[in-house]
Amino acid sequence: MTKTVEELARILHGTVEGDGSIPIHDVTTLELAQAGHLSFLANARYAPQAQHTKASAVLVPAQVHTPATQIIVGNPYYAFTQALVLFHGHRQHKQVGVSPQASIDPSATMGEGCNIHDRVTLSEGVTLARRCTLYPGVFLGPGVTLGEGCVLYPNVTVYENCRLGNRVTIHANSTIGQDGLGYSTEAGVHYKIPHIARAILEDDVELGANTCVERGSLQDTVVGAGSKIGSQVVIGHGVQVGAHCMIVAQTGIAGSTRLGHHCVLAGQVGIGGHIEIGNHVTVAAKSGVNQSIPDGQRVFGYPAFEMEKAVEAYSAIKRLPELRRHVRELEKRLRSLEASSRK
Amino acid sequence: MTKTVEELARILHGTVEGDGSIPIHDVTTLELAQAGHLSFLANARYAPQAQHTKASAVLVPAQVHTPATQIIVGNPYYAFTQALVLFHGHRQHKQVGVSPQASIDPSATMGEGCNIHDRVTLSEGVTLARRCTLYPGVFLGPGVTLGEGCVLYPNVTVYENCRLGNRVTIHANSTIGQDGLGYSTEAGVHYKIPHIARAILEDDVELGANTCVERGSLQDTVVGAGSKIGSQVVIGHGVQVGAHCMIVAQTGIAGSTRLGHHCVLAGQVGIGGHIEIGNHVTVAAKSGVNQSIPDGQRVFGYPAFEMEKAVEAYSAIKRLPELRRHVRELEKRLRSLEASSRK
Amino acid sequence: MTKTVEELARILHGTVEGDGSIPIHDVTTLELAQAGHLSFLANARYAPQAQHTKASAVLVPAQVHTPATQIIVGNPYYAFTQALVLFHGHRQHKQVGVSPQASIDPSATMGEGCNIHDRVTLSEGVTLARRCTLYPGVFLGPGVTLGEGCVLYPNVTVYENCRLGNRVTIHANSTIGQDGLGYSTEAGVHYKIPHIARAILEDDVELGANTCVERGSLQDTVVGAGSKIGSQVVIGHGVQVGAHCMIVAQTGIAGSTRLGHHCVLAGQVGIGGHIEIGNHVTVAAKSGVNQSIPDGQRVFGYPAFEMEKAVEAYSAIKRLPELRRHVRELEKRLRSLEASSRK
Repeated sequence: MTKTVEELARILHGTVEGDGSIPIHDVTTLELAQAGHLSFLANARYAPQAQHTKASAVLVPAQVHTPATQIIVGNPYYAFTQALVLFHGHRQHKQVGVSPQASIDPSATMGEGCNIHDRVTLSEGVTLARRCTLYPGVFLGPGVTLGEGCVLYPNVTVYENCRLGNRVTIHANSTIGQDGLGYSTEAGVHYKIPHIARAILEDDVELGANTCVERGSLQDTVVGAGSKIGSQVVIGHGVQVGAHCMIVAQTGIAGSTRLGHHCVLAGQVGIGGHIEIGNHVTVAAKSGVNQSIPDGQRVFGYPAFEMEKAVEAYSAIKRLPELRRHVRELEKRLRSLEASSRK
Repeated sequence: MTKTVEELARILHGTVEGDGSIPIHDVTTLELAQAGHLSFLANARYAPQAQHTKASAVLVPAQVHTPATQIIVGNPYYAFTQALVLFHGHRQHKQVGVSPQASIDPSATMGEGCNIHDRVTLSEGVTLARRCTLYPGVFLGPGVTLGEGCVLYPNVTVYENCRLGNRVTIHANSTIGQDGLGYSTEAGVHYKIPHIARAILEDDVELGANTCVERGSLQDTVVGAGSKIGSQVVIGHGVQVGAHCMIVAQTGIAGSTRLGHHCVLAGQVGIGGHIEIGNHVTVAAKSGVNQSIPDGQRVFGYPAFEMEKAVEAYSAIKRLPELRRHVRELEKRLRSLEASSRK
Repeated sequence: MTKTVEELARILHGTVEGDGSIPIHDVTTLELAQAGHLSFLANARYAPQAQHTKASAVLVPAQVHTPATQIIVGNPYYAFTQALVLFHGHRQHKQVGVSPQASIDPSATMGEGCNIHDRVTLSEGVTLARRCTLYPGVFLGPGVTLGEGCVLYPNVTVYENCRLGNRVTIHANSTIGQDGLGYSTEAGVHYKIPHIARAILEDDVELGANTCVERGSLQDTVVGAGSKIGSQVVIGHGVQVGAHCMIVAQTGIAGSTRLGHHCVLAGQVGIGGHIEIGNHVTVAAKSGVNQSIPDGQRVFGYPAFEMEKAVEAYSAIKRLPELRRHVRELEKRLRSLEASSRK
């Protein structure tokens, strides 16, 4: 497929600065781009690359220094995403129908257009809506229900009674609805607490690979509509994640905590149990959150506090030995003043 | 099932404050409870909820302010667990017998009452005691032995010669007995060290989902009886975890380290290699432990040290910029004193 | 098998101190060793054990205090590895040929001597070179290519078009080539960015269990030849890891970051996105790296900086409350001096 810069600008609601007649046949990074490519500048860090790119056109938020024709758009990263989808589309799933090598309980039901690969297990009472794709090794426990257009990659396991909304995507080797680490301890022995609630993933949730969403003990674990979760994340039992959150790889949220909507948790973040995180909260990578956070706050640190203060405080750690030497030196000078004042 | 408060109190060894004749038909949280429900107050944080609960009865450690009838017990969380088991039981596993779609080596043996689902692999020399349940996709390598009543959820993989005691439970997509990251480096190339020892999980161990217990290179990796481990934990090669430990999600223990019994490692903790952690040690969430810890100590921090001191020290980080400003101000005042004393 | 100390010393290029005629039949740790065992001293921490070992011979870098015969070698840990391989070999894979219970697309091709276990999936266009072993539950998506002698343990999933070099080993339940957490956000909704590039593992890479290597969005994710990666690691989309790196368990590297060769990332390290890590860089356990690091540097901390400075700075955190008290005391003394100077 080929489109001129002009045509692309129209589709992407942008305005052209430069030659709009150039034909574009693909999209890529500033660094990898060649003639005929559209690229984008979404991160100021890469501005120098815009000056040297071989791309024929670049999506930019405002005019920049570049040899390429510029398409000025409000949100270059989003426009680039649209262009990438235009040229490449999303992953297509082969239409395989229902494999005779799947294990399907007679009580399981499914809508039209589902792809059930070899070696999928649908236990009793499983319900799939239309056009779900389940790759080999997927296991759905008793009573699991999936909405339309869900895609579960190989070896994803969903325990009994869990519920996935429409268009939920789960990458390989992830686990949904296992019991959380719930025990009560009496006389030094840990007694298992039954987990009778479910894990629920609402519409348009996507989970990375090897990620875990525990079922609740008494209260359902919920991941809100449109939230996107990376690889190797653990969502603890009874946690409620609001809509449109972004949770980066290797983050963990402990039991019964509630997150608002549009939160961003960067990589390797830990959120303690039984706390309340507001809406639009941002937690910097590797931070540890041990108390509730109000709406809109950005935090960093271990334990985490307001981002700007935390950045200053943590950079002061570096100069802590120097500060200690400074204090010792002040004391010496003070002692000498004290001595002379006693004379 | 319905029981009166009085009947429950007898079963749970508690004493009733209030109307003991009320019928109870389920157990849940203070917040979710309605008439006919039993709830519990185990965490002081939820005391305000006890004042407003709609539960008919509440398990408490001592009389509190609540409209519900109270059942006073020594350990409300344990009593609640018993009540939850009473009303709901533990997960039941369907009796499926031995699937003809499992791959069972002729040399594998199993006790009566095992459930071997479709697509389980039992390699040569595998031995299962009675009443084990292996879900689809479980792989047991050569020579693996399981005690009675083990439950392995879908896609759990156990490498050769590993040994699981009685009533071991492993959640989906976990891996037992893979090689650790063991190499010796010569002239910049990493040479693999064979891992000839095993991973051993003693009786009543439960592991979360996507958790890894590496086999030992020369010395077995051991998880002691009754220890409970969350999701996405890594137990390194040659590590020895004592009995009745509780290890929360995303924690990692590096090679050859030994933990005593009844230790608690909170979430995302890292324990360095080749160190000794005593009995009854508690490590706060996200801490990094790089030296041995004596019995009974509670630690926090990165690197971790005594909990109370660490909490004070880490909260002082927040005020570090202020401390630096304070020191600069003292120096200014000192300089002015020095100047006037020289006059 | 039995070899005399003398024979072993010749094989391992060492020199004998003591009785070289003693027969050795196995290798193990100083602590576990008995008569007839060869052991090694590679970590000074274990020097006291060398004094009390029952081993008949010990590999050492220089003469030490021990009752055992000593074999002095340049690199005892490497020599021990060679001896362990000599006595035990590496894991052998049963020759099972190609299982009729595997799902093999007619367009898939494979070299001679491959072991394709039950329930492996080879999608359209998969290409395997000679002597690959794929355990049950392995899934290779369309167009995946593997070099010679690869070993993929149970339930490893490799997404479409990814490429593995020769002798790549991947432990159970790992995922290669899933999409990264790539979305552009417009009006509060996250739009998925297609991931059209691949994940590439070069020759002799070994990955632990439950580890994830994301595919690139526009640029391939690459793990360089000879690099070894532990369990539960996440290599983000578009990351480039150089050759002969060692990446310990639970580490994560965020998108588009580049690592040089011979880097060591200890356990639970986090590396931010879009940065450049030089060659021979060492990052201490649990550190968080948020900026580029030049060749050869060793770093520690959160955020990480030069190792020696960071060790001093982080140990000063412990004495921060004391420092604050000291500063307050100095102020008091200063105030009293100021008062007397005003008289």
